Amino acid sequence: MRLEEAGEFGLIGRIREIAGPPPDRVLAGIGDDTAVFRPRSGYDVLFACDALVEHIHFDLSYTPLDALGWKALAVNLSDIAAMGGIPIGAVVSAAIPRTWSVEDVEALFSGLVQCGRFFGCALVGGDTVASGGGCFLSVSVVGEVETDKAVRRSGANAGDLLCVTGEIGGGRTGFEVLTQPGDRSRYPVSVERFLRPRPRLSESRTLVRYFPIASMIDISDGLASEIRHLCLESGLGCRVDEETVPVSEEALRWAKENNRPVLPYAFESGEEYELLFTVPPEEAVDLLPRFKTDTEHCPVTVIGEMRPKSEGACVQWGGSLYPLDTDGWDHFKLNRNG
Amino acid sequence: MRLEEAGEFGLIGRIREIAGPPPDRVLAGIGDDTAVFRPRSGYDVLFACDALVEHIHFDLSYTPLDALGWKALAVNLSDIAAMGGIPIGAVVSAAIPRTWSVEDVEALFSGLVQCGRFFGCALVGGDTVASGGGCFLSVSVVGEVETDKAVRRSGANAGDLLCVTGEIGGGRTGFEVLTQPGDRSRYPVSVERFLRPRPRLSESRTLVRYFPIASMIDISDGLASEIRHLCLESGLGCRVDEETVPVSEEALRWAKENNRPVLPYAFESGEEYELLFTVPPEEAVDLLPRFKTDTEHCPVTVIGEMRPKSEGACVQWGGSLYPLDTDGWDHFKLNRNG
Repeated sequence: MRLEEAGEFGLIGRIREIAGPPPDRVLAGIGDDTAVFRPRSGYDVLFACDALVEHIHFDLSYTPLDALGWKALAVNLSDIAAMGGIPIGAVVSAAIPRTWSVEDVEALFSGLVQCGRFFGCALVGGDTVASGGGCFLSVSVVGEVETDKAVRRSGANAGDLLCVTGEIGGGRTGFEVLTQPGDRSRYPVSVERFLRPRPRLSESRTLVRYFPIASMIDISDGLASEIRHLCLESGLGCRVDEETVPVSEEALRWAKENNRPVLPYAFESGEEYELLFTVPPEEAVDLLPRFKTDTEHCPVTVIGEMRPKSEGACVQWGGSLYPLDTDGWDHFKLNRNG
Repeated sequence: MRLEEAGEFGLIGRIREIAGPPPDRVLAGIGDDTAVFRPRSGYDVLFACDALVEHIHFDLSYTPLDALGWKALAVNLSDIAAMGGIPIGAVVSAAIPRTWSVEDVEALFSGLVQCGRFFGCALVGGDTVASGGGCFLSVSVVGEVETDKAVRRSGANAGDLLCVTGEIGGGRTGFEVLTQPGDRSRYPVSVERFLRPRPRLSESRTLVRYFPIASMIDISDGLASEIRHLCLESGLGCRVDEETVPVSEEALRWAKENNRPVLPYAFESGEEYELLFTVPPEEAVDLLPRFKTDTEHCPVTVIGEMRPKSEGACVQWGGSLYPLDTDGWDHFKLNRNG
């Protein structure tokens, strides 16, 4: 059905059906001027937004619409995870090209709602408007975390160990596999990570409940960029050991088969949605084995150490240190891959 | 300065400066994965978003960038007002055309922050991304309202009076004055309303604190459309008296000078951001004089009555009733204006 035929009321009605009734604590959802929810006593509220722009962040030639909807919410849930929080609800601003059908919009919202059900986040409102150009999606989420327990980017201390969950490289590998000719089936983990990322929500809760995590951020723009954010906000430097970065088997294989250096898959692969965090070294002894047991399969790897600001943010490779700022980073890449 | 020169870190830094430090209860603002705020005991949380798309909702040929920023937040604050709430904070997703300068982005955010300061809403986060096409803005707000006091669209009862704040017609008049050649200075109220709308936040608080407002909505798409929303969500019909709708002096003058019927300025003028609400008739006797005193200058007008669903949503004009659904409405317009 064409969008004009459904009209505004018809389209909102369909989205409302797809979303289903909100959970009890959401007192008003789709169909009112705002959503309403009851905050829990003893919790702070988290609030964030992230946008996906067609031809910049995604291309429909390789992105199924339900995967787009999933991802639009998942990248926001990853921000909630990065604060140590629990999601509550999401609202969506969607600028929809006039050429889309009602079924296209339904597929998009179905994927988004599916992601929400998986991670416990209700779709509670939004604004669906026409776009003369491409599709633009902005999702905003609210979540909660125990009072004063939100994990900031700014809480790291010199001497803290810098750790990362899971494995890195799948985001970039998945993107390249999808956009280049060839057999996608040999890179299933990377393709799935790129299309339907899994925010580390339960892993984040394990971290904040049992360990004094000093600072945390999710890896959306790439490991190097996120390390710089943590250093900047905490007023520190760091030393990262290049060899310890846990690059995924598929990323290593893809780089090798395509005759490419591994380094960009470790440090510049965006859309990973793993967590980068710091923890005092005396806690790491307990954390590493316990975390793996509690989360069943998610590993944690120590990749470096926070240092005083005067030492800068550096990567150790071979016997040398390379600054992780943009210039030093480029120089490092030349040396490492050249 | 070109956007590429500033880079992501530079741009976020500038926006953070413009936003200034957040108020005390906002524990984390711009520069973290999410904003964090402490909910007040005894309050529910409100949450909504609204999008503005270039060439659909605005055109930069007649919209100064600071007015665009103001409006992007104001339309969201109007949703908070429609629930009877108090704003807390906003996050912004902005897809910025690559042709814009850093100064353009600064002007946009300065207008938004100015609106926020005026109405008590802090800019606490966002996502600024590149757009290959036009500008897209999505603002999300959180607010609060006393527990169980959020005014839904669905609470109206048959027999309730249907009321509207302020005057109607300025949104459409302002748009037409701005987009047609001529002297703008003769329509200052309408132009200002269109460019820098004033959400009825304090008026809404007066309503919900002193009167049992049964249902409420803000007028963003036009009076006829909002009346249909209230009827639909409350499962009711209504009878609106066309002659009672308070059309502004400028709208009447503009319609007359341009030889146009007044009706569309009363019923289809969007972007009014007045409040449409229902109240039991026995309360109206007190409300009308007291509201005007409490809010200093904002009038309230009774424009009709809620009726059982079986009677439909109708406009009374002359001696006849015209259904307010899309078909009947079109028929009414033919009779009224033809």
